[in-house]
Amino acid sequence: MAQKPSIPKGTRDFSPIEVAKRNYIFGVIKSSFERFGFQPIETPSFENSDTLMGKYGDEGDRLIFKILNSGDFYKSLRMDDEVTLYGLEKFYNYLDKSLDNNIGTLMDSIDNELKLGYKKNENYYKTIKGYILNIKEIDFSKLLPLDEDYKSKCRKIILLRCARLFLLDSTTHISKISEKALRYDLTVPFARYVVQHQNDITFPFKRYQIQPVWRADRPQKGRFREFYQCDADVVGSTSLLQEVEFVQLYDDVFHKLGLEGVTIKINNRKILSGIAEVIGAKDKLIDFTVALDKLDKIGEEKVKEEMISKGISKEGIAKLQPLFSLKGTFESQIESLNDILSASDEGLKGIEELAFINTAINNVGLKTASLQLDVTLARGLNYYTGAIFEVSAPEKVQMGSIGGGGRYDDLTGIFGMPDVSGVGISFGLDRIYLVLEELHLFPETIANSVEVLFINFGDTEAFYCLKAIAKLREAGLNTEIYPDAAKMKKQMNYANKRDIPFVVLVGEEEMKANSFTLKNMKSGEQTKCSLSDLIQAIQ
Amino acid sequence: MAQKPSIPKGTRDFSPIEVAKRNYIFGVIKSSFERFGFQPIETPSFENSDTLMGKYGDEGDRLIFKILNSGDFYKSLRMDDEVTLYGLEKFYNYLDKSLDNNIGTLMDSIDNELKLGYKKNENYYKTIKGYILNIKEIDFSKLLPLDEDYKSKCRKIILLRCARLFLLDSTTHISKISEKALRYDLTVPFARYVVQHQNDITFPFKRYQIQPVWRADRPQKGRFREFYQCDADVVGSTSLLQEVEFVQLYDDVFHKLGLEGVTIKINNRKILSGIAEVIGAKDKLIDFTVALDKLDKIGEEKVKEEMISKGISKEGIAKLQPLFSLKGTFESQIESLNDILSASDEGLKGIEELAFINTAINNVGLKTASLQLDVTLARGLNYYTGAIFEVSAPEKVQMGSIGGGGRYDDLTGIFGMPDVSGVGISFGLDRIYLVLEELHLFPETIANSVEVLFINFGDTEAFYCLKAIAKLREAGLNTEIYPDAAKMKKQMNYANKRDIPFVVLVGEEEMKANSFTLKNMKSGEQTKCSLSDLIQAIQ
Repeated sequence: MAQKPSIPKGTRDFSPIEVAKRNYIFGVIKSSFERFGFQPIETPSFENSDTLMGKYGDEGDRLIFKILNSGDFYKSLRMDDEVTLYGLEKFYNYLDKSLDNNIGTLMDSIDNELKLGYKKNENYYKTIKGYILNIKEIDFSKLLPLDEDYKSKCRKIILLRCARLFLLDSTTHISKISEKALRYDLTVPFARYVVQHQNDITFPFKRYQIQPVWRADRPQKGRFREFYQCDADVVGSTSLLQEVEFVQLYDDVFHKLGLEGVTIKINNRKILSGIAEVIGAKDKLIDFTVALDKLDKIGEEKVKEEMISKGISKEGIAKLQPLFSLKGTFESQIESLNDILSASDEGLKGIEELAFINTAINNVGLKTASLQLDVTLARGLNYYTGAIFEVSAPEKVQMGSIGGGGRYDDLTGIFGMPDVSGVGISFGLDRIYLVLEELHLFPETIANSVEVLFINFGDTEAFYCLKAIAKLREAGLNTEIYPDAAKMKKQMNYANKRDIPFVVLVGEEEMKANSFTLKNMKSGEQTKCSLSDLIQAIQ
Repeated sequence: MAQKPSIPKGTRDFSPIEVAKRNYIFGVIKSSFERFGFQPIETPSFENSDTLMGKYGDEGDRLIFKILNSGDFYKSLRMDDEVTLYGLEKFYNYLDKSLDNNIGTLMDSIDNELKLGYKKNENYYKTIKGYILNIKEIDFSKLLPLDEDYKSKCRKIILLRCARLFLLDSTTHISKISEKALRYDLTVPFARYVVQHQNDITFPFKRYQIQPVWRADRPQKGRFREFYQCDADVVGSTSLLQEVEFVQLYDDVFHKLGLEGVTIKINNRKILSGIAEVIGAKDKLIDFTVALDKLDKIGEEKVKEEMISKGISKEGIAKLQPLFSLKGTFESQIESLNDILSASDEGLKGIEELAFINTAINNVGLKTASLQLDVTLARGLNYYTGAIFEVSAPEKVQMGSIGGGGRYDDLTGIFGMPDVSGVGISFGLDRIYLVLEELHLFPETIANSVEVLFINFGDTEAFYCLKAIAKLREAGLNTEIYPDAAKMKKQMNYANKRDIPFVVLVGEEEMKANSFTLKNMKSGEQTKCSLSDLIQAIQ
């Protein structure tokens, strides 16, 4: 009964070297987070569905992995008369009547009903029609002669099948059979955490969180159904110094990773609102920003077309013209924006915020990254209210953003704690991994693998070795003994395949002399030495 | 629309200090694993249901968290005529006939059917009888007069409700609406990993894995629905040196954690089999070991009672008498066992294995822990075939086992790769945490928290500070600046609540002098100093 083993699509196994490389990135990010005063928290992998549902839009709700209630998950549903049978009863009445009159005209009746337009259920009727025609046990050609027995049999089959069709309603049942769901991001659980533990927290609260999240997205290159997020957020202060520190933090991490040429793009939601206000499309802010966000990808003309198709006036778009060619230094862009947005208080506020951040960063300096103003930056997330961040990999690498974030003014409000401002950034682990891989930036000594293998010549020799091995391990050396007294060649092969740089050989001679033979696997050189020499040679 | 936030029962949030303490334990375990030559792997949080189901017994299957298919999870079920309607049709036929004859006698008919004993569905009938009686829309007293209209109405209601009852069948539907499940342990995913990646693995393969697992167990003190397992296993060799190394590994980890007085108990499944063979209860090995395992808890008499109740003969149990008083050193117990099991080849093999491990351990020595033979040790898991391990916390702490493991000869067989021997151990993180907490064994410096806070007197001062802060961070100091120019008292309070040992104050005077005022929060002492003095003083 052997099964061919596989894993669910969009998930991954990580081999030892992959784990080591991922841990290297996590380690660098963690150490920077802690240098900047962030503290780690962890939240459960699954939350109550109530906590997550409705926080990420309809699309998000769809992509959240739901966990079935344990045991007989239908129990409450079966016994619960509150689960409406309205649709089923209505349909039953209708179907029953059709069947009584003349089962042969059933299809015509359904067509008629469709034409009348049964409220909201039109699709159901289409589905059901196709479905009934496909019930294998029914020979519809036999229905025209008035064979009452056959009609009665078909009547039963159709009723049962249709009952099933109606009863199995995902939308109605979901909240009854599933009350928990896998974490979709780290921000909503963090907001929940802050509200739940508000009495134990000292604000402003600087937390970081590095945990996996799960999304039922269509898997594609670089997009997975299980992946880690690395988030740092501050809640409880509106100070722009935090935005400044997040720019420094990005710089610090990518500097430590040896990744040069990273661009930290910044924008401000208030500038986007200001622009929408100035062109008289305040109510179309989302349509507007979604279109503007595509400037890099589809170009000026297509963006304008999209804006027009969304009902933004040509006059408004004309006022925007300077925006499409906004280039140059941070400072000169700020100047142009001051002109464009002079009529919008909100827009001017946004400019002021950006200017502050830029001045502070110029003052303190960055190590490796550069800060760039990008007014087309909107990011999908509608909850940003101030700064918006996005980090691009160096131009020589074909890769989207490797980080992002922003300020959101009232995230904890959904959990009953209003007016707490938050700002945070996130690192895209998987993409950073690919970038480091492509640019060969992973240190060579990353794997923490075995440094020395003791060859096994039998129990007596092994017992002698075990004592030495204990000493080597105490000296911090990753050490192992080949478990079986296998052929020498097999043991040496094992050392080679695992890239173990040293092997130690102990036979009768060495045991007598209380010594060891050390072989350097690269040079092939063999030396006889004492235990302390052995340790020194390998260290 | 504020929600009161909470998390699912059996799950936990971890605060910064808890995360730090847990990471400390993980760190010690990881470093020992790597010293001993184990390499980390990671597997997805959810596996295909096929991979997990049927591997942990019926109880395990029940406790596995299943993930609902995404989107319209009923789709395949609604359209799939393979889903049997057998039960529903049978019931429908029966119900329909009862209803046609005389709905008033429905209950009697159900009673009759119950007496006849409807195959396997007796419980259903009982449920349905109660259920029908509870349908609110039906007034059963009205059914006796032959009111055909009322009867027809009730007929419909009962049919619909019962259809629902039958259609919502958790057992039939589960595999159609859920194809993925959360990891239940690390051993089965590891076996799957080994088989799936066998061509990329160098055997013997020593892997460790530290990841959460999920079980829908009833939550209780110290038992959670999400918890970490820390496993190290070797596959691909039958060498007993591995058992020896696992004893050393346990000793190494608990030594590093400062936990003295740990007992590593060891037994061998072959000894248990040998005993069962000798007393003529070979087919009752599981009943026998389950009873023997309780010796510590319920005492000799109750264990014997249980054995008798399971059909083990009194004569057999009499032969066991020496077992119940088996005490003394490892060596003397081995001697007694050699007598008791002299007639069982398998038993003698088990003794030989234990003796080898004991000799090797005596030869190499343990640092802190002690190794103890315990023939009552069976552990619930039936897949162990050789050594069985369990680690007890020091006696002064009230705590069950803090680790366990053993050898299993053919785990990968279920995935089509037979005859690969594996042996492994596991550390119980949550219990180790509680033990260290109770004995105050966590190092004080564990939290990696902020070492110095810069007080914020306004933007100009803050800009001055930012430069210094960057230097401090580069020197490895966890440093932050209070984000707002809040009142001094508020900022000092923040430093106190977060246990920050140093604060730095910078006003006009300091800026002019290019200096800093450092305040030691414990002593209250204040000193004016240069940047390099500052760094030295805090380091």
